Amino acid sequence: MSKYTIGIDFGTLSARALVVEVATGREVGTAVAEYPSGVLDTRLPGGEPLPPDWALAVPGEYLDCMKAVIPEALRQAGVRPDEVIGVGLDGTNCTVLPVTRDGTPLCALPAFQGEKHAYMKLWKHHAAQDQASRMTELAVSRGEKFLDRYGGKISSEWLFPKLLQVLEEAPEVYDRADRFVEMTDWLVSRLTGHEVRSSCLAGYKALWDRRAGYPDEAYFAALDPRFRTVVRDKLPTPVQPIFTRAGDLTREGAALTGLIPGTAVAVGTSDSHVALPGAGITGPGTLLMIVGTSTCDIMASPVMKPVPGICGVAEDGMLPGYYGYEAGQCCVGDHFNWFVGNAVPAAYQAEADARHMSLHALLTEKAARLRPGESGLLALDWWNGNRSILVDAELSGLIVGLTLTTRPEAIYRALIEATAFGARTIIENFVDHGLPVDRVCACGGIVSKNSFLTQLYADVLHRPISLTASDQTPALGSAMMGAVAAGAPRGGYDTIAEAARRMAGAPKRVFSPDAAASAVYDKLYAEYRRLHDAFGRGDSDVMRRLRQIRRENA
Amino acid sequence: MSKYTIGIDFGTLSARALVVEVATGREVGTAVAEYPSGVLDTRLPGGEPLPPDWALAVPGEYLDCMKAVIPEALRQAGVRPDEVIGVGLDGTNCTVLPVTRDGTPLCALPAFQGEKHAYMKLWKHHAAQDQASRMTELAVSRGEKFLDRYGGKISSEWLFPKLLQVLEEAPEVYDRADRFVEMTDWLVSRLTGHEVRSSCLAGYKALWDRRAGYPDEAYFAALDPRFRTVVRDKLPTPVQPIFTRAGDLTREGAALTGLIPGTAVAVGTSDSHVALPGAGITGPGTLLMIVGTSTCDIMASPVMKPVPGICGVAEDGMLPGYYGYEAGQCCVGDHFNWFVGNAVPAAYQAEADARHMSLHALLTEKAARLRPGESGLLALDWWNGNRSILVDAELSGLIVGLTLTTRPEAIYRALIEATAFGARTIIENFVDHGLPVDRVCACGGIVSKNSFLTQLYADVLHRPISLTASDQTPALGSAMMGAVAAGAPRGGYDTIAEAARRMAGAPKRVFSPDAAASAVYDKLYAEYRRLHDAFGRGDSDVMRRLRQIRRENA
Repeated sequence: MSKYTIGIDFGTLSARALVVEVATGREVGTAVAEYPSGVLDTRLPGGEPLPPDWALAVPGEYLDCMKAVIPEALRQAGVRPDEVIGVGLDGTNCTVLPVTRDGTPLCALPAFQGEKHAYMKLWKHHAAQDQASRMTELAVSRGEKFLDRYGGKISSEWLFPKLLQVLEEAPEVYDRADRFVEMTDWLVSRLTGHEVRSSCLAGYKALWDRRAGYPDEAYFAALDPRFRTVVRDKLPTPVQPIFTRAGDLTREGAALTGLIPGTAVAVGTSDSHVALPGAGITGPGTLLMIVGTSTCDIMASPVMKPVPGICGVAEDGMLPGYYGYEAGQCCVGDHFNWFVGNAVPAAYQAEADARHMSLHALLTEKAARLRPGESGLLALDWWNGNRSILVDAELSGLIVGLTLTTRPEAIYRALIEATAFGARTIIENFVDHGLPVDRVCACGGIVSKNSFLTQLYADVLHRPISLTASDQTPALGSAMMGAVAAGAPRGGYDTIAEAARRMAGAPKRVFSPDAAASAVYDKLYAEYRRLHDAFGRGDSDVMRRLRQIRRENA
Repeated sequence: MSKYTIGIDFGTLSARALVVEVATGREVGTAVAEYPSGVLDTRLPGGEPLPPDWALAVPGEYLDCMKAVIPEALRQAGVRPDEVIGVGLDGTNCTVLPVTRDGTPLCALPAFQGEKHAYMKLWKHHAAQDQASRMTELAVSRGEKFLDRYGGKISSEWLFPKLLQVLEEAPEVYDRADRFVEMTDWLVSRLTGHEVRSSCLAGYKALWDRRAGYPDEAYFAALDPRFRTVVRDKLPTPVQPIFTRAGDLTREGAALTGLIPGTAVAVGTSDSHVALPGAGITGPGTLLMIVGTSTCDIMASPVMKPVPGICGVAEDGMLPGYYGYEAGQCCVGDHFNWFVGNAVPAAYQAEADARHMSLHALLTEKAARLRPGESGLLALDWWNGNRSILVDAELSGLIVGLTLTTRPEAIYRALIEATAFGARTIIENFVDHGLPVDRVCACGGIVSKNSFLTQLYADVLHRPISLTASDQTPALGSAMMGAVAAGAPRGGYDTIAEAARRMAGAPKRVFSPDAAASAVYDKLYAEYRRLHDAFGRGDSDVMRRLRQIRRENA
């Protein structure tokens, strides 16, 4: 009898389950369900308006989606529950919710349904920028060593700025919360009946380190005396390494999933980091770009180097025995979606309709007919701020070179190029700080569907790009985690390296750079870096001041 | 019996006649006719292809249109030819044609119908940029004083670059031409039987000055030995001040127009400058903005000051006894048209269609609901380069502050704001160089139709903006010129001041600045000026380098 594991990947808009054959990595069934409320960024479910930069979600809907996708994926696969030996979960992060003692989300309590701070704050909730800035300043002034692991800056997307925002803006929510939990850890706890904190999620998003632990209380106290005991009071859950078993499915967990009690459940991981084993990468020097609405760049290395502007580095954060480095662009596919939703004329829509193609496909076709450099356009890919290497959510998008003859496809192409230039900036930053990048792999819907974009990335990067075998790399990585949680005795694997070797396929396609295109992109990239430094490093503070003016007049 | 005059305004695409009652300025009839061939910018009428940046027209069609619009406007007005005491003409400039000795356009000769240089070069013919650049460089190196009157640069739109292009590229056309004539002067000569050169057109577009005359022969010789005698050989027509009578209608001119022989005909003027009296402005310190696809800013002053970046200053060029200053933005309405044609999503088109409104009207309605500063956007209004005050066609458009929540109406509004900031830059440049601006008037289709835009301009400028009474300000100004050409003895007026006092109406509406909005715009304008200087004054040469990359890859 074949054994299977299930990887469940919790994205920003939907949850996906993937059923995988343990022996071969064959993907035999998958199912997706969208969270009914999606991202709450303008109003709460009850209609209460949200300020700018907020991004919330309803945690119960994540649970409901998990309930729906597992049986459906099994049904599609023709796999019985008793053939499933393990489950792995990964999700967006830091996506954090306040819960009561028994793990009930605060926003599920009637008294808190109109209170925005009671909801789950998504990774892309950017309203704690003020808190993040203060935390960075304080850490710099105190010479906190932990900053070295986070590129010198604390992002508004991380745990403590979000918690500090709750404390400052809604102390009653902060007080009422028994604790704050990462969404993925919370979902795992619903399956196993007890809560553990993933070392990966704690390492990358909660300033936690295997050796040093959390920042010390004096640091938190200097932010706000009430914040001194935040770890003791609000983060009591013990941290547990990834690649281990969080527990087994309880009866309640089994009822929730349709699986059988006792099935192994892995410690949760980040949806991006788990893609590294998912892509079959189990050693250092290979950078994996996970390209989606945003892009995550991850790489393992045997050495610890402070690299400015990365998102984080954590020992054993991605692969056992290695430091896992993470950098990223907080807006990639989101640029293209913004463009299609807001800036493509009716005539293009009519042409796309007539030809039964998507606007993305039409724009890609037209953009591909342009030569590099022909449009005279250049953009900064900062529609959602800049994560690496500037770590500044106050930055914003820019286009220059517009003329009366500029056509939509030229702007679309400039947006693609800008994200490629952003990727090159990240890779050069790694190399410049002593972390050689020997090979680049890519995964994600955009790179696997849009070969024009992937070729353009190869041209801009001057490097071949290998497309990973699976279209569901994170979910496949989580399925590997499930196999490791089960372990060899139950039919799984004892190490993630072994799991990856057996379960990951060879690259689907390798894109080689075109020398002529690369030469033109070198010129454009030089201009990109000039603008990048001018607007991003303070020579021109206009973007930050525009944000300020915007806040004053919101 | 009432007396009437007719103003005829020759635009880029059509000619318009306006019949006006002399005593009151009442507009009693109007007619418009489009030139059948319009702008020749891709092919000659016979099919011969044109290079990029060319813009030609067929002068005979201008004559035909004049023939059509005068009788039609009279018919609509119910005015008899013998009730008309004078005619005034204005037109685009420098729009210049080579003619034979008897004034026949060269392009009307069968031998020249396939020769592009034999046609009339429109103001927006930009193919003499190379000649213009060389002329500027030479003038700078020789320390030519005349540059002071033109903001330090010679535009490719002016007379001598166009003539030099003919000499260099088609010497046989240059040789065969008895002379070169401004279109408006040529049309006036068809009515009066003899040719005079308008002091306004010569002053602003032919480097001519009442005191200094044309540049001297040594300058022209240094460009090309054959060009030394260009003024003597090809511009023999005597310059005559505006506000004077060019002559009376000949029998042939009467036949052409349906008017009676002996009717007074004014010296021709520029379609923009004649708007000054047309708006009722007869003294210094009032700046008139003529807002259209581009914007022309004109003002009279008793003093001559070198103002950098203006288009030109000419003594008696707009009003007798004053220096007339001209500055301008080469892209205003064109921004909004570009946006509507290239960047507005299908859903907006559907909404506009359903509500039977134009996309401009819909976007204006939505943009008006935003608060100043709320969008966080800022644009540089350089989609077609920058005329004043940077005089640089290599500059290009820029938008900054884009985020994933940026909506089309916010960009539309940012474009409107950018053109307002450009206008403020021009006004401050006048003030900073010793030319006080006491009052601002505006005319043109955009400001009279779009009160949101005009209010926004008032807010940005911190000044009330008076909307001129007439919707045909240039044609009304030309009708005033006709009344002055006729003079008091024939029932007209002896001075343009008197004509303007009687014939120009009170402002249709005055837009007063809103203090709260102005305060926000001050902040945005400060950022605009920073970007303006960074990208326009060489701190960041990225726009010019992008143009260069574009040329290399076209």
